This record gives sequence, structure tokens and C-alpha cells, in this order.
Amino acid sequence: MKTLSILLKTFNFSSHSLSSTPLSLLHRRHFSSLPLSHPIYTIWAANTNLGKTLISAGIASSVLESPNPSQFNYIKPVQTGFPSDSDSRFVFTKVSDLFLRRRADFSLIASNHVVKVSDAASKEVLGKYEEKKVGGDGNLGEKRLICRTLCAWKEAVSPHLAVEREGGSVEDEELLEMVEKCLWMGVEGEEKGDCWSLIETAGGVASPGPSGTLQCDLYRPFRIPAILVGDGRLGGISGTISAYETLKLRGYDVVAVVLEDRGLANDGSLLSYLQNGLPVLVLPPVPQDLSDDLMEWFDESHDAFASLKQILLSSFTERVKRLHDMRKKAGDILWWPFTQHQLVPKEKVTVIDSRCGENFAVHKVDSCDVITQQFDACASWWTQGPTSALQIELARDMGYAAARYGHVMFPENVYEPALDCAELLLEGVGKGWASRTFFSDNGSTAIEVALKMAFRKFLYDHEATVDISDQNSKRSIEFRVLALNGSYHGDTLGAMEAQAPSSYTGFLQQPWYIGRGLFMDPPTVYMQCGNWNVELPNELSEGHKLEDLTFGFRDELFSKSRDSSDVSRSYVSYISKQLSAFSRSEQNKWIAALIIEPVIHGAGGMHMVDPLFQRILVRECQKQKIPVIFDEVFTGFWRLGVESAAELLHCSPDIACYAKLLTGGIIPLAATLATEAVFDTFVSDSKLKALLHGHSYSAHAMGCTAATKSIKNYKDQKKNPNLTPNGRALKEIWDTELVNKISMHPQIKRLMVLGTVFAVELQTHGSNAGYASTIATSIIQKLREDGIYARPLGNVIYLMCGPCSSPRTCSELLAKLHHRIDEFHKNNLSSIP
Amino acid sequence: MKTLSILLKTFNFSSHSLSSTPLSLLHRRHFSSLPLSHPIYTIWAANTNLGKTLISAGIASSVLESPNPSQFNYIKPVQTGFPSDSDSRFVFTKVSDLFLRRRADFSLIASNHVVKVSDAASKEVLGKYEEKKVGGDGNLGEKRLICRTLCAWKEAVSPHLAVEREGGSVEDEELLEMVEKCLWMGVEGEEKGDCWSLIETAGGVASPGPSGTLQCDLYRPFRIPAILVGDGRLGGISGTISAYETLKLRGYDVVAVVLEDRGLANDGSLLSYLQNGLPVLVLPPVPQDLSDDLMEWFDESHDAFASLKQILLSSFTERVKRLHDMRKKAGDILWWPFTQHQLVPKEKVTVIDSRCGENFAVHKVDSCDVITQQFDACASWWTQGPTSALQIELARDMGYAAARYGHVMFPENVYEPALDCAELLLEGVGKGWASRTFFSDNGSTAIEVALKMAFRKFLYDHEATVDISDQNSKRSIEFRVLALNGSYHGDTLGAMEAQAPSSYTGFLQQPWYIGRGLFMDPPTVYMQCGNWNVELPNELSEGHKLEDLTFGFRDELFSKSRDSSDVSRSYVSYISKQLSAFSRSEQNKWIAALIIEPVIHGAGGMHMVDPLFQRILVRECQKQKIPVIFDEVFTGFWRLGVESAAELLHCSPDIACYAKLLTGGIIPLAATLATEAVFDTFVSDSKLKALLHGHSYSAHAMGCTAATKSIKNYKDQKKNPNLTPNGRALKEIWDTELVNKISMHPQIKRLMVLGTVFAVELQTHGSNAGYASTIATSIIQKLREDGIYARPLGNVIYLMCGPCSSPRTCSELLAKLHHRIDEFHKNNLSSIP
Repeated sequence: MKTLSILLKTFNFSSHSLSSTPLSLLHRRHFSSLPLSHPIYTIWAANTNLGKTLISAGIASSVLESPNPSQFNYIKPVQTGFPSDSDSRFVFTKVSDLFLRRRADFSLIASNHVVKVSDAASKEVLGKYEEKKVGGDGNLGEKRLICRTLCAWKEAVSPHLAVEREGGSVEDEELLEMVEKCLWMGVEGEEKGDCWSLIETAGGVASPGPSGTLQCDLYRPFRIPAILVGDGRLGGISGTISAYETLKLRGYDVVAVVLEDRGLANDGSLLSYLQNGLPVLVLPPVPQDLSDDLMEWFDESHDAFASLKQILLSSFTERVKRLHDMRKKAGDILWWPFTQHQLVPKEKVTVIDSRCGENFAVHKVDSCDVITQQFDACASWWTQGPTSALQIELARDMGYAAARYGHVMFPENVYEPALDCAELLLEGVGKGWASRTFFSDNGSTAIEVALKMAFRKFLYDHEATVDISDQNSKRSIEFRVLALNGSYHGDTLGAMEAQAPSSYTGFLQQPWYIGRGLFMDPPTVYMQCGNWNVELPNELSEGHKLEDLTFGFRDELFSKSRDSSDVSRSYVSYISKQLSAFSRSEQNKWIAALIIEPVIHGAGGMHMVDPLFQRILVRECQKQKIPVIFDEVFTGFWRLGVESAAELLHCSPDIACYAKLLTGGIIPLAATLATEAVFDTFVSDSKLKALLHGHSYSAHAMGCTAATKSIKNYKDQKKNPNLTPNGRALKEIWDTELVNKISMHPQIKRLMVLGTVFAVELQTHGSNAGYASTIATSIIQKLREDGIYARPLGNVIYLMCGPCSSPRTCSELLAKLHHRIDEFHKNNLSSIP
Repeated sequence: MKTLSILLKTFNFSSHSLSSTPLSLLHRRHFSSLPLSHPIYTIWAANTNLGKTLISAGIASSVLESPNPSQFNYIKPVQTGFPSDSDSRFVFTKVSDLFLRRRADFSLIASNHVVKVSDAASKEVLGKYEEKKVGGDGNLGEKRLICRTLCAWKEAVSPHLAVEREGGSVEDEELLEMVEKCLWMGVEGEEKGDCWSLIETAGGVASPGPSGTLQCDLYRPFRIPAILVGDGRLGGISGTISAYETLKLRGYDVVAVVLEDRGLANDGSLLSYLQNGLPVLVLPPVPQDLSDDLMEWFDESHDAFASLKQILLSSFTERVKRLHDMRKKAGDILWWPFTQHQLVPKEKVTVIDSRCGENFAVHKVDSCDVITQQFDACASWWTQGPTSALQIELARDMGYAAARYGHVMFPENVYEPALDCAELLLEGVGKGWASRTFFSDNGSTAIEVALKMAFRKFLYDHEATVDISDQNSKRSIEFRVLALNGSYHGDTLGAMEAQAPSSYTGFLQQPWYIGRGLFMDPPTVYMQCGNWNVELPNELSEGHKLEDLTFGFRDELFSKSRDSSDVSRSYVSYISKQLSAFSRSEQNKWIAALIIEPVIHGAGGMHMVDPLFQRILVRECQKQKIPVIFDEVFTGFWRLGVESAAELLHCSPDIACYAKLLTGGIIPLAATLATEAVFDTFVSDSKLKALLHGHSYSAHAMGCTAATKSIKNYKDQKKNPNLTPNGRALKEIWDTELVNKISMHPQIKRLMVLGTVFAVELQTHGSNAGYASTIATSIIQKLREDGIYARPLGNVIYLMCGPCSSPRTCSELLAKLHHRIDEFHKNNLSSIP
């Protein structure tokens, strides 16, 4: 593809015009930031040839004729049939002519450029940089119309076909970058609202762009408000509504529908469909005579365009106002979970305009209002899985599931999404051990259900010793869980009871908390200076060989060969000692379940527990017929690089809980899987022996549909490039070299990396936890400036991606984190006298 | 509109052909049942003039040419431009010609009819009942092609415009009924798969039908699998994808896309969009010459149509097979909540194919497979609010929310759906008292959060007497709730603790349950023989005047004037006696919260608690600074005829919980609202004093979007015809006369009716609860045959509709229930010797 140098001069992206985009445009994903200082719209159509360009010209004229805005940018990113068809040239010509006809007081400097053209089209491009000054004696000053065609092909076919036939391919990222640059040009230095931009798409809303990506998907990261040009012809109601729905299904806001009057009153049907008060504007029929200069048509349409302009301006103003107001309103009426409101002043509130795949689009007020992008590095409390492509597919599936099922009640019923999801779970995370799926709404409820299942199973297996038929003995029997210090299982009372006491469980937080567990200190594992070290609890810390506790590679930690090590024997005796101490000391109290988060304690601070220890713990409990629960709410579905973290432990539970990534991170749903042996302990001819637990939206259709789609997507070789060839694991997502380097940094105390999770614990030099948390906060603040939305866990900073996230993106995140840690460290050193 | 009698003869819906549709077709909603014994498809198009009729003819030929099926029904429900345009006549002619050309062994009896035509069109209808026999010597028997146009207008415009211009309006229900009849004709008596039906729509997928309803919405209750005719022209990729998305957004399954080859390879783009393996078939270009008889084109297209036919057949076969398999699979791998699996044999499992507004479409195997409709009279565990129109709007909004936000994390952030929803809640159910919204996932979690809030508030208000700073005293302090016997607040441990002991809370079900409440017996209210009676707990039952305890109208129960009655004074002393007895007997135990379900105990058996009693209870607690929680999970959002049941009590809580109807019954979401005074007790400069409770999907965008839409919808006079003129309440939905009559029936012990809920407790004649539950089960079984999906609560049968449900529908439900109760009663009497 040719970049005509003569034209490039006029498309000079001088550095000053980009100074408010903080990130390098190299290696960026989607976009860095878009100005919100002036109205920007995208014009879409229900089909080709519905008059998008005419309407663009009408809007441009209407804007330039009013006293205020001094500049109008018209952008045609993709043009085929060029140069005989050139929408930007049409706008350039018609708007100039109209200006001359209507407005004598201002003068207009209009230009038309083309940036890149295919070789085939370039042969015919002669003098395609045009500029003219029309009207006015300049008394009241000058106005500017800048029309640009960004990429053009000769054949009048769909852009992806033109690329196939003429060459000149343009990647989506490249095209977006060009558009973004255009949107920033001329904005700086201008007064607010002094400049408008309009992007005209090619063909219909879902027509492919040059790369084949549908345009509605291609431009989605920008999520610029839309004007939809409808179809006034026979059949046009349908086409317009469908196009509208396609835009909505991509998360666009349509601000107005405009259509040509073809005598069929299509606007009436559209208005009755669009019950939300969206304006539908009707333009007079366009003369069919090709020699008509359309000046009269534009005159007749004058009022309609003036209304449209006003609608666009009001909508823009309201949008910006609302974005500003939201911060304060949020502080006034919301009650955030886990948040001390007093510590979140208005200016610290993040206003999220949307998300696209892994990225938030957030509103920021800097030198001007912008919508800027931040990678959601906490994966929105560890729920997120979708790329932007999966998100759009999920959106369509959510619409389908809502339309087909809404929600239908579950007990004694069956419907496709619930059955399909249950089948996939049993063939996936439950493979080889589970045979039943119980659905609930979140991790906490899944855990409560799991505990009820485990206790029943325990009762059943121990009926000889635990007799509850006798009222007196029943009253004195107490069930306890075996759990690890540092593990977390949710915030409802039942789930909390399975956690060790902490400031989260005190009387002030939950007066009903007792802490019904035997809580053991586990050995943990971390990386430091390139090595993986096992840290033993105090009781165990002596007499071990270094080679049993230090590993060059993480995978050695998971090896079954460690079963025969000395450490392994220590673990066995450590566990049995504690279990027998408990049964000696506690009359009538029984350890009736083991509950663990396999491999990683998430909320506890991203600590890795020695997998050998957990494997032995499971084995010892199963020997004593204590049912084993894996809490895979955090670890399930590729979070740790394998579908189920149980694979890393080489053992199976009796019961396991899943949520978060289960639905691709789009909607709440939880599942508790169990073996048939567990299920059987509830089967009887008495209803009272059934599991009498349920939630209204059990197995709701949308949740199950999202889960089905996401589970399949994660393990589809075609859709998840991170899968290893056998499809059983994710490749290393985080750059190994960089990880090693970070692990050696003096500011880093410990490091943990596994699957989609990377975490570092900061060195605090002393025991000042307050200081540590200050470090984290200051680094997190810097990361937000770098376009990374992270949140600290005390003095732990973590980065989390999705199972399909690109390793390139992750390496960029890592590099930025490394840079910020290093920067902090150096500043800190230099500040010490 | 004319019904031409000569034609009607051929459209004779003899009663035998409808014998498998159990319900009267009068007063039906949407449809009664559709045959699933043979393939039925609907053909849709992305726009007008894309060749739907050509493709219909091609499919019909392909089907009739194969040895097996002996009948093909082609149905054109809506035809404009008639009779010069008649798609059924085209199919009739072309298929006959093709049959003659290709198949000599069979003979074909083809007919073409039109049922109703507008007056304008009727003038030109001459001899429009045609029948001919072609081909074959009849050796191998006869085949039948039956082509029907159901409604026709003269002008070639959109049907709704034609109606406007020519008259001859057809209601949606009427049209659906006509189509349903056609689908049943000729099915009975035929072998399975021996008959095909194809319905051809008019124009594009979202073109309006005769009433103005978009066709995709109009035919939605049938949810017949779709063939989509795409657009092979320039711009056609976009139009086809948008049309596909419009169908998906209505819950349709598209089985194949077919399009004419116009040299642009549109199929390639469609295939890459439709990654789910949906077939895209390409037909050769259609000759433009109008004199062409198209026989050669059909020959060229022969293989494509053969493939298409095969795809349609396989898809049909697979669908039916899956519907059959689902029952068993469900029993094998699902674990239903609150269900004793042993009591649910395979044949008792309900296979739900979809829902449309208040109705399930369920699969039944009778004399043949059918999809039949059942009114969801348990509102899917009391969650449901949507009509079919709201459901479709919610579906679009769900798609939009998923595409715009997916899920974004909530703490310290703000995004439109969460803020919007919080605002609406505070202006609605929280009006006048609440100022903060805390989001969680379901009723149980909302209650756990409410309890944590209440306990903190109690601590704060009583810090002088309840000192937790001293470790020793803290350990001995215990918090209790005040609650009513029979109330229910959810299944997680914290929520269970606020409920009185029952078989649901025993050691077998939840070994951790203690029952941390003071549980009082409340006075209840019920209707019997046309009167409303208050039933007092034993302690209170003596010495009251009848006029204080019996009321002619339900509204008198809610009157504030009862505050000065004798009963009111009894309530005060009853409450204070119990409270002081508790504080005397329980050292260091404090009643730290009151929790009630206002007005109705839902899960407890639809018992109405005397609202006067609850009002006094609230007042007495607030006097003693005991925080008051309203559990409005069941009662909120118009369930009881007002937006918040608090309005019926004429008092406000400090904290209230909402879920179920909150989202229109489409997706899980819960909210706990609180006063600013409650919120303030968590504000501090210490994070550890914040409410440390949260769930991953707190305030998830889809849930909040659904809530916003639903809350607005319920109280929009334009959308909810049940609202009283002032918009503060629902009109009486259940026919008052019939309610009275049922309350006098000897089989009825008690009756309760309020808002969207109607419930009867069956008379058991003796204390045999098993017998009672047998009555309920047998009546429920009969109701399912009547198209009502109800579930009993012990010996209580209830019917529940949505806030916008039509009173006509509700009266029909009531009449059916009355009939079944009466039938049971008579059979029962007659069986007594």
C-alpha cells in the first residue's frame, strides 16, 4: 500500500498534538486515550447507499454554520471504489458549496486528504490533496473543515475483498491508531466544544473492514456514540431495527436514527420500537437525478440537520456532565464492599465507562476530559476470562439466553443450558471423580453447600461412632473442619466459620463467628533470586536437607517424586500429630471435613502452599474418611494454568466449588461438584433427607449459557493460543527472563508466578506494615498512570490476566511493573541520606 | 376483512384434527401446543426480495421428491400485494412444475388456498382455490402439497400499512391461532416425519406484521427453528449478520443460512462470523429475465436444496432426540435444590424448551411429541416479573450490558448501571428512609449483610451497656435476633440462624445451626367464606371482640385506625412481655435486631401475618433502639400489589433486603438498603471498621441493568396496565367474585389473596398431613394438564403472576383451579360410601 508522501505532509502527527496520550503508541492494545473535550460521533448505516455521506455533509454544514465551533474533522477510515467514489471529497465539496451559499460572514478553509491508497487506486490519484478557502471577507474569522480518507482501494467492493484483490492490507490496530491520531489533531489548544469530529464507516454496521473484522467489532474499543442511518424503503424497518440491535449488542450508544422519507412512514414503526425516546429524524427524499447539485435538498433538510446537531450536542454535554457527577454520587449513595468509605475521596473514585476484553475504558480529567484505557490487572476480583472477541460472543449468547429462557426454575426440571453446563463441568474440572452438579450463586454459597454435603457424608461414614439419633448425644456433638491458616472461603457465616480467626472475623465484623475449625499452619513456597523455596512452619523447620526445600524450577515442586522425600515424611507426622491432638483434647468434636484452596491462597495474599503438603493432607483425611472439599472458586478454570488446580496436586476431592472464571467473568454463577458417593448419602424415600438448600436463581439460564461458552472457549485450540499442544495446560504467559530478573530485585521479598497470576511481596525493611502498604499504594498509583488497573493485597502487588490473554501484553505489564518498582527503589535509596 | 366461504371449505378445522390440543382455543394466550412429530421450520430473510419464496419452493420440491414424506404444508401467514403477488401460488405452481419434470413414479396433489383477504384485495380474487394433480401413474402412491395464504392485502406495502390503508386488521393471537391450526392439519394419523411444514414470513425479520408487532416478536411464542435467507449483494454481509442477531435476540435457533451467489463471496465472511459451525449454503444467481421459468435454475440448485433438506431433517431429529434424552440425563447428573431425587422418576421431570413472558414451553410426549405451554404459576420461585414484551427488551439490554461492561469490579469504582440502579432503589423501595445501597447476589447474602449492619448499629447505639473492648466480657456477649415463627430468610448459615428451628435446620441438614433468635408466634390473617379473620396465638386468644378480629374487606386489615383497637393494646403487652422475659432469663444475651418478612410469610406457606402486629413490633423495637430489618426478598417490587410491602405496614425499617423480582426475574442480584445512620456506624479512619463483606460480582452490570429496566417498567403507566391511576398500587388482579366463591368452597380451609399472589390451604378433614399433601399433588397434576405449572407448599396451592400480568389470564387460572378443586371434592365425596 502506498503512502503518498505529498499527502503525508498534511497528516503530520506532530508530537505536541499527542502530549496528552501518556502511553507510547507502540505495542499498545486498542487505544491509549480519546479526547472527551469535544463531540465525536460515528455514523453507521443499516445498509450501503442509504446516504451516510449526505448526512455527514449535512451535519458538518450545520455545525460549521453555527457561530461556535471553528473546526470540523470528517474522517473516512476506509474507502473503496476510490478515487471515483470518495466520501471525504463529497463532504469537502458539498460543505464548501453550502457554506458559500449560506454564510458570508465567516470564511471557511476546507481541505481534503487521503493518507494511504492501494497500488491499484494510486495510479488514478492525481492531485488529491485539495484545499480551498471560501466565503466571507473573514470579518468574523475563519472556520476549518478537514476531510480525510485514511485508507482507500480502487474496487467498489467490501474492503476485505478489496484487500484480497488489490493488496494493501491494514491491521485493525493500525487503523485504530490512525483514527485516534485524527481525533487528537487540532483538539489541543482549542476551546472546549470548539471542534467536532465525525467518523464515517463503510457499508452497513456489520460490513467487514480491511482485515475482515466486522466494523462494529473493529471500532468497538473506542465505543464512540453512534448516529444510525436507517432505511426508508420497503423492508427498511427490519433492516434498521436489526442494525440498531447489532450496535447495541456491541455496547454502542445510538444517539439518533436518521432516514430518508420514501413515503412508507418507516419512522413511525421505528419510534414505536425504540420506546426509549431515541429521536428518529426524517429527511426529504433525495433527488434521483444525478445532475442535481443537491443544494435545494440541503436547504429543505436544513431544519432537520439543525435538530440533529442540537441532539448530538446535548447528548455530548449530558454524557460529560454525568461522567463528572458520577464520582460524587457514588460516594453519596453506594456502599462498596470491603471499603472504608472515609478513605475514598471523590477524586479517587474510578469512573468506568465500559470494558473491552481485558481493558477498562475509564473517564479521566487531566488537561482535558479523556476516556483512557486501563488493563484490568486484578481481573475484577479474579473473575475475568474474556478477550474482546469472547466478550462479544458472550453478549450475543446472553441476549439469546434471556430471550429464550429468561430464568426458569430448576428443581425437577431440565433445560438445555443447565444440562449442557453440568455435562461440561463433569467432563472438565470434575473429570474422573465427580458425577453430580449442584448450582448456586457465588463462591460463598457454593462453600456452604459443600460443607452441608461433606457433613452428611461424614455422618453416613461414621454412623457407628457418631450417633445423632439420641437427642442427648446429638446436642453435644460438634462438627469442625480442618483448614489451613491463611485460607479464605467467602463472607457468609458458614463460609467464614471455615476460616481461621482474623480481624475480618472479629466480634465487630461478625458477632456470630466462632471459628469452627482446626486451623493448621501450612508450608509455603515462593520464588526469590531465581529459586523456589519451601518455607516450613515453625514446628517443622529443623533438620531438612536444602535440596528438599529449594528448587530451580517451579515444576519440580509439583512432581510426584517428592512423595518419597524426607519432607514428605515430616508432613505426614505433622498432620497426624495435630489430628490426634485434636481428637484427644476435644470430647465429642469431630473433624468432619477438610477444606483447602488448592495450591494458592488467593485472598490470603497470593501465597503458594506446598503442593506436596496439600496432597498428603488430602490422602491422610481420605484415609480417615474425612470428606475433602477443594475450594476452586479462585483456582478453577485455568487460573493456575490448568483447568482444575486439582491436576497440580495429583489427587481428587470428594466435593469441589467453582465460581468466578466459571462464567467467563460476566455473570454470577457457582457450582458445587460431588462424587456419587456423596450424593448417595442424601438419597432416601424421605424428602427431609434431601439436600434442603437452594437459591431462587439456581442454574439460571444466562449463567449456565455463559459458563458453557466460556468453558469451551478456554480449551478450544482455535480460540485460545495459550494452550499447550496437548491442550492440558497453558504455556508460560509471563516472560521467564523478566520474572527471574524481578525475583532478584532488592525491593522484592517473594515472588509467585503460576498460570494467569503473577504476584510480588514487597520488601519492607523492618516490620512496618504501614510502610509496606504505602509502598504498594504508591506503585499502584503509578501503574494506573501506565494504564494498568491494579489493586494491592497489603504489601502484595499482583497482575492477573485471562486464560487467553496475549503473553506480549502480559510482558508489557510486567515490564511496566518492574520499571515502577525499580523507580520506587531508586528514589527511596536516594532519599536516604 | 373477508373470509371467502368458498375457500373456507378447504380450511375446515375439523375437531378431530385438534384433539391433541387439550385446552380450549378460546381465551388462550399465545398457543396451546405445537406438534413435534414432524419438521416445522420458519423461513426468514435479511431483507425483502432475497428469494425466500424461491427457497421455500426448492425445499418443498426436495422434500416431496424424496421417497418418504408424503405431505408438505406451505404456509404464508401474511401476504401483501395480493393477488398479483402470491407466494403460496408461486410455490404451488413451481413445485407442481418441478414435480412433473422430475418425478414420474408418484403423483402429486397440489392445492393453493387463501383464507382471509382484505376487501380491496377480494375484488380481484377470482377462483383462488386451486387444486391439481400432476405426474405419475400413481404407482407409488400420492403426495400432497398444501399451500395456504392466511391473510392477504392488496397493496404491496408493509402489512401494518396495508391494514391502515385497506382495513382488515388481524390480531396477533388470531394469526397465531390460524398458523397453529395449519400446523396440526394432516399431522394426526400420519407416520412420524411423514409431513413437513414451512412458514414463510413477510419482508425482513423485523418487518411489522398486520398489527404492527414485529414479526420476530409476533411468532416468538412458537419459537420454531429458523432458516435465514441472507443477502448476497454488496452490503449483504452486514444485513445478514444483523438479521441473524435479531433472531438470536428473540431466542430463535437458526439452523441454516442460505443466500444467492452474487459474486461477492459473502458466504466466506458469514462463515467466519458464525463460528459455531452453522451451515451457509450458496445458491446460483437467479436469472433476472422475468420470462425465465426458473426450471433450469432449480435444476442447478438441486444439490444445494438436497443438502439443505438433509440439514433440516438432521437438526429436527437431533432436537427431538435431545429432548427425549434430557429427562434421563437430568436425573443422572444434576443435583436439584430442595429435591429428594428418589421421588422424581424420569417421567416426572419437566423438560423446558423455553419461556415466553409468563409461559413455559415444555416438551411432552403424548400420542405424539408436542411442545406445549404452561403458565409459570409459581413464578419460578417467585422471581418472575416479565411479560413477553419486557423479556425481549431485557434480552436486548442484557446483550448491551454484556457487550459494554461484561462485569467490572465495584469497590471504589462507579459505572452507570450500578449508580442508576442504586438511585432507582433509593427513590423507590427505599424512599423516605434509605440512603445507601449495598449489592450482593441473592436473598441469603443480602440477609447476611443486613444482619452484620444491624449488629454494628446495635453495638454503636448500646456501647454504654454492651462493651466489647474488654476481651472477657466480649467473649460472653451473645447477639440474638427477634423473629417470627414461620418466617424464612434463606439457606446460608447466617440467614438460617435467624429462623426458628424446623426440620430444615436440624443436625442432619445443618450441624452448625444453633437458632440464634427469640422466635415469637405471630397472629395471622386469612380469608374464609368471604371474610377476613385474625387468628391470635394461644397466649392472646381470649377476651377479644369479634369486630376487632373479623373484617369484610382485606383493606381494613391495613388501616391505621386499628392502632387504637383493643387488639393493638394486647399486641403491645404480648411483645413487651416476651422481650422482658428474654432479657431477664438470658444473661449477656441481647436482642440486636428485629427481622421480619413484612405482611406475608412466603416459604412458610403463604401465611399473612397481621399487619397491625408487625407495625407494633417495629415500633416497640425502634423504641428500644433495636435495628429493624425488613426481608423484602419475596415481598418487594409489587409482589404484594405495592412497590414495597413496607407501605402496607405504614412504617419503615432501618435496613431492608431485596432480590427475586428486583431484576425482573431474569438474573441473580440482591440489594441491602440502609439508612445513613446505619452506614455511619461503619465510617471511620480505620479500614477494619468498614463492612468487610463482599462478593465477586457485587453490583454486576447485567444484574443492575436488568433491575433498572424492570423497576422502571413495573411503575410505568404506559407499560403496566395494572397500575392504579395514582401509580401507587396494582389494581385487583384476581377476580373478586371468584375469589369469594372459592373462599366458600368446602374443600378450602383458608385463602389468601394480595397483589400478585393467590393461595389456598386445602381442607384436610382430620390431621392427616400426608393426606393433605396427596390432595395438593393430585390437583397440581391436573393443573399441569390444564397448562398451569404450579408447585405445592405442603397442603397450600398458590398461583402467582407478574406485576403486569393480565387480570384476564389470572381469572382463567383461578377458574381452572376452582374447577379442579371442585372436581376433586366431588370425586372424593362420591368415593365415600
